[in-house]
Amino acid sequence: MKKIVLICFALLPLIIFCQQRTQLNSKFVLVIHGGAGTILKSEMSAENESAYKNALAIALQTGYDTLKKGGSALDAVEMAIRTMEDSPLFNAGKGSVFTNEGKNEMDAAIMNGKTLSAGAVAGVTTIKNPVSAARAVMEKSAHVMMVSKGAEQFAKSEGLEIVDPSYFYTERAWKGLMKAKEEDSIKALKGERKKAPGALKQPLNSDDKYGTVGAVALDRYGNLAAATSTGGMTNKKFGRVGDSPVIGAGTYANNATCAISCTGWGEYFIRLVMAKTISDMMEFKNYSLTKAADEMIMKKLPALGGDGGLIGVDKNGNITISFNTAGMYRGYIKNDGKASINIYKD
Amino acid sequence: MKKIVLICFALLPLIIFCQQRTQLNSKFVLVIHGGAGTILKSEMSAENESAYKNALAIALQTGYDTLKKGGSALDAVEMAIRTMEDSPLFNAGKGSVFTNEGKNEMDAAIMNGKTLSAGAVAGVTTIKNPVSAARAVMEKSAHVMMVSKGAEQFAKSEGLEIVDPSYFYTERAWKGLMKAKEEDSIKALKGERKKAPGALKQPLNSDDKYGTVGAVALDRYGNLAAATSTGGMTNKKFGRVGDSPVIGAGTYANNATCAISCTGWGEYFIRLVMAKTISDMMEFKNYSLTKAADEMIMKKLPALGGDGGLIGVDKNGNITISFNTAGMYRGYIKNDGKASINIYKD
Repeated sequence: MKKIVLICFALLPLIIFCQQRTQLNSKFVLVIHGGAGTILKSEMSAENESAYKNALAIALQTGYDTLKKGGSALDAVEMAIRTMEDSPLFNAGKGSVFTNEGKNEMDAAIMNGKTLSAGAVAGVTTIKNPVSAARAVMEKSAHVMMVSKGAEQFAKSEGLEIVDPSYFYTERAWKGLMKAKEEDSIKALKGERKKAPGALKQPLNSDDKYGTVGAVALDRYGNLAAATSTGGMTNKKFGRVGDSPVIGAGTYANNATCAISCTGWGEYFIRLVMAKTISDMMEFKNYSLTKAADEMIMKKLPALGGDGGLIGVDKNGNITISFNTAGMYRGYIKNDGKASINIYKD
Repeated sequence: MKKIVLICFALLPLIIFCQQRTQLNSKFVLVIHGGAGTILKSEMSAENESAYKNALAIALQTGYDTLKKGGSALDAVEMAIRTMEDSPLFNAGKGSVFTNEGKNEMDAAIMNGKTLSAGAVAGVTTIKNPVSAARAVMEKSAHVMMVSKGAEQFAKSEGLEIVDPSYFYTERAWKGLMKAKEEDSIKALKGERKKAPGALKQPLNSDDKYGTVGAVALDRYGNLAAATSTGGMTNKKFGRVGDSPVIGAGTYANNATCAISCTGWGEYFIRLVMAKTISDMMEFKNYSLTKAADEMIMKKLPALGGDGGLIGVDKNGNITISFNTAGMYRGYIKNDGKASINIYKD
């Protein structure tokens, strides 16, 4: 009798392991974006296109590996975004654009659809991976949003990698700032800046504001997560913060509906409370994810004067990629492991 | 004939004036709050109670005067909030609580229901009236949200009143910080801070986090506006930002539905995207303002573990005041000019 009990005890870990395995869903999904904007095939070199596709493939594979082995949607979106933050190609982390003062001020957010927990940082300048700082805010603090120096102190106290601001220098982003300033001067000379008070003024370098990266995922436990990371807008002034770190605007996840990450002209996404409105259309109007996303991106957003796009995944693993710009760096991968990567509209 | 034409021209301004007057609705409404929390009659001196009621009355009268003479809902909410920011009684502007570092870091937002324009500032330390800075961001910049030093530079460049940080010292707020730090030390000694990673930790001085001020209004043109201003949470660290400046969370206005200003445990209001969700319940589910507000404040908010309250007005002038705390400084005034002011639950 004693022997049987001992054997049962010895087998217990195996039984628990098998039970956990059978609880895992076969379906899991990761969708990523590297920003929407004026991305035209006619203006893209083959070399550049290949570099972007490669970077997107790395992000997808990283998230896929996490999900496949039973990792959480949160882990998958964080890990996928970290690879894009570490790439100089996207306007997030390493490749962040420069502010008017020649700095790199980054924003990021993450949200857990299971618990509706969320974390965000804004205006940070020394955190190598802002998405991981957002996750630390969510999991290691009593808060949801931290800004500027305070957020940096917190990230440091949590042991996240802190870098010298010079780490974020890239020639591409610096040239972008120089170009934006030049255009600014020309427009100022032409008097184009004078508009009626109260009107939302067009940022001066409108093409460079769409480099945000984002990821949404459904994991094998049926949990959703979303995350977004950005360097903001080239030549931005006055500590401007866009929609990326604003929960409900650029980033939102809720197991009852969907996970969303946005990219585009952030001011309009904030005013429309873009991501939460899509979730509410699904919850309150029984819209599908795609119908809700298209309603917002193709109708409400341009009606207000904005543009951009978003990625989403719903609780059943249906995905949506909607944008009203010329292009959007994007990709997805499902449990079959086949990655789909696209850049242009058609 | 020439004479008749001349007389008509002379009367034109009068005709236009009369027409404008008849276009004005007779109905207009202003609702304000000065924060929700553990406000108990048993702990309030008669003198204190009278001071709070007086300050609320001044805010209501200021907004009423604006609305009565045909001023906009935007003007009314800004003006009403400015009086509360200038009072040392509320946790906003002059009376803002202190951060862990002994600073006053303020947040504010404003939204125009007619245009869905919005403006917000966060983590500002030298702007006398943050609500006016939020309005300047909305009306004088291409942006919606600005944080920290950048927001201060912008406010200064727009000619807003800048004060030395010492202006925001009040004995009440300083004592609050000392008390919070003492409680923090005691709790740290008792080891109460150690909780499971991932759980949203209870801020240490929970009673002092609810002093936010806010206002919502419907003007005689049928336009809605909302604004919120706060000093945040006593003893807060790391540049924490609550729900007040987050459009869709603590502040939201939309002529199609309602205007909302929240007060309470900000982290939960952000995670629930409180104000926009109420608007969406009205738009997508045909809920009344009160039904939607109660659903969120009495059910969804406590279900997640949060507390607080909100004020709202819908496009027809119906108002709602909903809170699940012991008390909430609040008041409203309608076109009849009779102010209603309350502090406690019953």
